[in-house]
Amino acid sequence: MTLNNIDINEIIKTNSPSRTKWFVPGSIVSKRTINPIREVVCNMKTSPNPDKEQISLALGDPTAFGNFKIPESCNEAVIKQLKSYKANGYINAVGCDEARLALVQKFSTKEAPLATKDVFLASGASDALNIAIGALCDEGQNILLPRPGFSLYTTLSKSKGIECRYYDLLPNRNWEIDLKQLISLIDDKTACILINNPSNPCGSNFSSQHLESILAVAEAYKLVIITDEIYEDMVFGDTKFYPLASLTKVVPILKISGLAKRFLVPGWRVGWIFVYDQNEILSEIRKSLFSLSNMILGANSLLQYSLPDIILNTPEEFFQETNKKLEFNAKLSVEALSSIPGLHVIIPQGAMYVMVGINIDELKDIKNDVEFSEKLLQEESVMVLPGECFHYPNYVRIVFTSPPEKLREAYDRIKEFFVRHHV
Amino acid sequence: MTLNNIDINEIIKTNSPSRTKWFVPGSIVSKRTINPIREVVCNMKTSPNPDKEQISLALGDPTAFGNFKIPESCNEAVIKQLKSYKANGYINAVGCDEARLALVQKFSTKEAPLATKDVFLASGASDALNIAIGALCDEGQNILLPRPGFSLYTTLSKSKGIECRYYDLLPNRNWEIDLKQLISLIDDKTACILINNPSNPCGSNFSSQHLESILAVAEAYKLVIITDEIYEDMVFGDTKFYPLASLTKVVPILKISGLAKRFLVPGWRVGWIFVYDQNEILSEIRKSLFSLSNMILGANSLLQYSLPDIILNTPEEFFQETNKKLEFNAKLSVEALSSIPGLHVIIPQGAMYVMVGINIDELKDIKNDVEFSEKLLQEESVMVLPGECFHYPNYVRIVFTSPPEKLREAYDRIKEFFVRHHV
Ligand SMILES: Cc1ncc(COP(=O)(O)O)c(C=O)c1O
Ligand SMILES: Cc1ncc(COP(=O)(O)O)c(C=O)c1O
Repeated sequence: MTLNNIDINEIIKTNSPSRTKWFVPGSIVSKRTINPIREVVCNMKTSPNPDKEQISLALGDPTAFGNFKIPESCNEAVIKQLKSYKANGYINAVGCDEARLALVQKFSTKEAPLATKDVFLASGASDALNIAIGALCDEGQNILLPRPGFSLYTTLSKSKGIECRYYDLLPNRNWEIDLKQLISLIDDKTACILINNPSNPCGSNFSSQHLESILAVAEAYKLVIITDEIYEDMVFGDTKFYPLASLTKVVPILKISGLAKRFLVPGWRVGWIFVYDQNEILSEIRKSLFSLSNMILGANSLLQYSLPDIILNTPEEFFQETNKKLEFNAKLSVEALSSIPGLHVIIPQGAMYVMVGINIDELKDIKNDVEFSEKLLQEESVMVLPGECFHYPNYVRIVFTSPPEKLREAYDRIKEFFVRHHV
Repeated sequence: MTLNNIDINEIIKTNSPSRTKWFVPGSIVSKRTINPIREVVCNMKTSPNPDKEQISLALGDPTAFGNFKIPESCNEAVIKQLKSYKANGYINAVGCDEARLALVQKFSTKEAPLATKDVFLASGASDALNIAIGALCDEGQNILLPRPGFSLYTTLSKSKGIECRYYDLLPNRNWEIDLKQLISLIDDKTACILINNPSNPCGSNFSSQHLESILAVAEAYKLVIITDEIYEDMVFGDTKFYPLASLTKVVPILKISGLAKRFLVPGWRVGWIFVYDQNEILSEIRKSLFSLSNMILGANSLLQYSLPDIILNTPEEFFQETNKKLEFNAKLSVEALSSIPGLHVIIPQGAMYVMVGINIDELKDIKNDVEFSEKLLQEESVMVLPGECFHYPNYVRIVFTSPPEKLREAYDRIKEFFVRHHV
């Protein structure tokens, strides 16, 4: 009964092949899906000095060194779900009720109320961003992104054919937004503003006044804000983190967050979107978020079912402890780096990053941040990311999650490096 | 120093807002991202009969009833990783080396060799499909999809602006492809053929001869095949499953699979793509897969690091046991359903589905499969999916993973339903 090959040859004659050779190009979309970090890093000559132990200050992964760990109680929560055999099945693509409810319980406030329907789980904040940007922006529109900023925003936007317009963050004003320049970028094709607070790579945290100014702009131009608050509450000393949504009753907001940073489990891929929309402006967007979530079905079930225990039962001390350790490292970093002539440290207020300006003129044989990072790795086996990765030349980003002794060692080497290369 | 609202009003004058009202439409892409199952099911009048316990034969989730479970050894593997605190960090977006290597060890064969670079982990087979389709197809091109077929193929393709062309599966020939009709669909804009074997919703399994015929077509027209083999080896009796890639040295293949079905953990979101490309035709596609994987970073770290234990140490008996249970349920279903006049059962050879044709003419007050499913739910509290969900009217799909006693009960009710509605 089955067609044999002779039959097939007969049928093929009915529609003769036009391709005579194999030629399988990658799709246009995949070719414009470019990760700036990867582009920069892949083109770097990156072999460390074999005589010195490598120290990476490059990766935004707090788990890399074993000094930052999720509480054991969270592990227990996952084990409980594993053993129940009830957390292995398909769940609603926007998240299981248990997880959505736990997030509501934890994060709903009087100023910024949340209901279950406002919560969309996703496979990490990356997926949450992908879905949020995809819901709001059309090909040919533009999105306003921070410069310096997290490179994934560019990757995701360009992948969708959305034009990236960069608003400047001002290093001399604690990386506040240059609102005048931001406004100059807005036109009829602007789909939304994306802000990131606290910031990767800046380690900055906006004041409530500054956030209110940003909201005033969004309100004037009727622009939705995507606010990436994955580092929420990771702030130092007296600095206070303000959730953007708590400061407005007017501007519709999609807030992005997740377990990655605060709970120190970036590999677990649990992120979410909160929709704040007190005036029901985003009803189409909710449908869009829903449709896009159904493509890959979000965060895994095991961790979603564990989320109530993780979110609601992790003691406040755990976060304080993490912040204290980060703050200690931040101070250590600022002190050590400030003492190096030729470097200009912008004091971080949160997250796990510090941006350090390099006075390239003071270095005799280094022409920019990329070459700086290359030579630092080659000579001192210390890896930092050049500002170029964040669209911000002549700075480097340092991640200060390594244990203090490693940081000290790294900064000592950077100092020696400067001594050697200083004019 | 910060700009106060008065300043902002001044700046706003420099670029006066053109939108005077909030208007935030969902993106074009999100609006064309449609899930046929959801469309059909949401429009159904779906309230079950309150006097009868509901039995769902609708959801392709083997974990729903507690009778199919992942082996405890796999849980132990995950617990080991949790306790190590070494499996929580970011990993390579295409998968950690450990997971990729384990998949190579398990699945590489002489006929279809694999190396680590050929393996791309993803967040479930859904994400793997999204990435594979996204790498191969451009907007405006067309993709050849099975009819009846898994609805996600349509969702993902339409989302990307790819035209879906459906090739027919022939119920009277064990759901083999109508190759002549398939060939008639091919033109210059055809990007690839997607096949699904064993099939959801058909429960069919292609013979090696038929697979060879499909390969002959792909070879003649120089078309890459995406083969969704998520139900690989889930076949009954003497039926043998042939991995498509084992039958060709010429046609480049992207194989999709994952843990969801064979390991009974669909919620875990672990899927993968294997690239089979003995003649190096897919070098651009590898780059595309890589770029697209970097958008959301794939399957979670915990389960990826557990993958070697899960994949390499799960005893063969576990799969045999699962298949036996499925086969038992399949036989029970075929027997029960075949005895109902007005139904036409296509005997399943694998997976967990059976397609049942309805002789609508024999029913006095039911006009199609959607109405059939609606009334069956209303009257008998038995939920099945109408063929419409798979682009195949006047069939319904039955999932036979419920415990046998539930299945019997459901089929008894379907029988009564027929008696009542038969002409
Ligand atoms: C600002 C910012 N947003 C989002 C992410 C991505 O988070 P996730 O790992 O949950 O995808 C990161 C990760 O570094 C980040 O720095
Ligand atoms: C044929 C087929 N492919 C892919 C999938 C999706 O698998 P996953 O849950 O791993 O995304 C399914 C799920 O039902 C399926 O039936």
